Amino acid sequence: MKFQKRLDKAINKNNSLLCIGLDPDRKKIPSHLLEQQDPIFEFNKAIIDSTHDLVCAYKPNIAYYSAQGSDGLKSLQETIRYIHNNYADIPVILDAKRADIGNTSEKYALELFRIFGADAVTVSPYLGFDSIEPFLKHRDKGVIILCRTSNHGAEDFQDLEINGEPLYIKVAKKIKEWNLQYKNCLMVIGATWPQQLKEVRKVTDDIFFLVPGIGSQHGDLENTIRYGVNKKGSGLIISASRSIIYASSQLDFANSARTEALRLKESINKYR
Amino acid sequence: MKFQKRLDKAINKNNSLLCIGLDPDRKKIPSHLLEQQDPIFEFNKAIIDSTHDLVCAYKPNIAYYSAQGSDGLKSLQETIRYIHNNYADIPVILDAKRADIGNTSEKYALELFRIFGADAVTVSPYLGFDSIEPFLKHRDKGVIILCRTSNHGAEDFQDLEINGEPLYIKVAKKIKEWNLQYKNCLMVIGATWPQQLKEVRKVTDDIFFLVPGIGSQHGDLENTIRYGVNKKGSGLIISASRSIIYASSQLDFANSARTEALRLKESINKYR
Repeated sequence: MKFQKRLDKAINKNNSLLCIGLDPDRKKIPSHLLEQQDPIFEFNKAIIDSTHDLVCAYKPNIAYYSAQGSDGLKSLQETIRYIHNNYADIPVILDAKRADIGNTSEKYALELFRIFGADAVTVSPYLGFDSIEPFLKHRDKGVIILCRTSNHGAEDFQDLEINGEPLYIKVAKKIKEWNLQYKNCLMVIGATWPQQLKEVRKVTDDIFFLVPGIGSQHGDLENTIRYGVNKKGSGLIISASRSIIYASSQLDFANSARTEALRLKESINKYR
Repeated sequence: MKFQKRLDKAINKNNSLLCIGLDPDRKKIPSHLLEQQDPIFEFNKAIIDSTHDLVCAYKPNIAYYSAQGSDGLKSLQETIRYIHNNYADIPVILDAKRADIGNTSEKYALELFRIFGADAVTVSPYLGFDSIEPFLKHRDKGVIILCRTSNHGAEDFQDLEINGEPLYIKVAKKIKEWNLQYKNCLMVIGATWPQQLKEVRKVTDDIFFLVPGIGSQHGDLENTIRYGVNKKGSGLIISASRSIIYASSQLDFANSARTEALRLKESINKYR
């Protein structure tokens, strides 16, 4: 099934635009888990079991796993497999921000889609179309291209003006163009400045935005949703990680994560 | 020792600006190696043993390894360890084109510098300074930032004009600025259009360029060197991969790689 269809189904089933970022850090997870054989997997498993009916997707960021070497990558593989085996309705976005020249991007696509089994990945646009096409060719997978990111440094290049419009609008227009052909593009737009979501929504019709920066990065939820939704009241994947997964560092962390996820899911729905 | 110093020493010792890209593909390496326990490592080892006195650096691209799963990443780790243990003078550039928001880039820096032991890495500039700073803070390591890449798609965004100059010149100027503070920046400039090296050299003083696209990508060697060298007749790392490592697919592949590496090293020196 195509990623977009899976995503729409998960959104409808759980009535949720919320995506939980699974970015566990050994230093921050509850200490009682450290006695387990694979603490990172056990942490993710508990969060997933307690939130699977509240989300439209999970989004592990590969850096949090690869920084732990082969053990970390094994935890990532187990986590994705666990979601697929137990909650097959919920797609997995692997946040990797990859891209290289064409033949190398093909290798990355193999790694992320085949080795890790991701349903969608994030990629970086700086190298242009031929660096992204190898991902797009996996037509059942989603390809989520960075457009306007939520960090402060995004201003350095993404906001530079080209003939009266910022680079990120140029990128958004290209993504729309690529999507006409491949139909599996989405894009990353940070929640830090909701005005930017409005501008990008204007030029991209119904394309989905993955929106990080809600939660620990303190984006403005109400305007993010109001400005970001497409004509169908959908079109957004609102991602939060630390504010949910570290809601508590005690034995009850999974319940606390559920409470926080539920609260955020409902806040999002209020503004749709 | 700082990366730049190690690199300068290797350039002087071997009188070479040549860097060999170690991007092995199981489908392309000589078939007799497939009987070995770790064919990819054995392939790299043979190439390294036969070329270590002709190069200033080796540059494995992590995608070629990660696409093979944990076995591939083990081959990469073994390869880098082998170079460090046996040819400690030759630095290793890990081509990874990473970058993410700050706390995630810190994880990537740990992966690439600590887990894999790279002496330098390539990173992508789209997310701006705070996505690159976590790498720069490893002050003994080299941080090689994409500026103008060698692929066709580079035109999509890198060549867009901002107040009369292309984005890649804006990126080059930022890299120069960051280098004033951290002193461990280098940049990637493809060899496809040597005119672009000339423009970038004008605005970046003596900063080193990593130049892919010589060899299989058919860059123009003479003009690349003439336009790219800094005032000291150095400042370039000329990278070739497929044209050297696949010079032969027979038993003599390592000798053929040496012949091709020597030819390219001498061609480069002719124009310095």
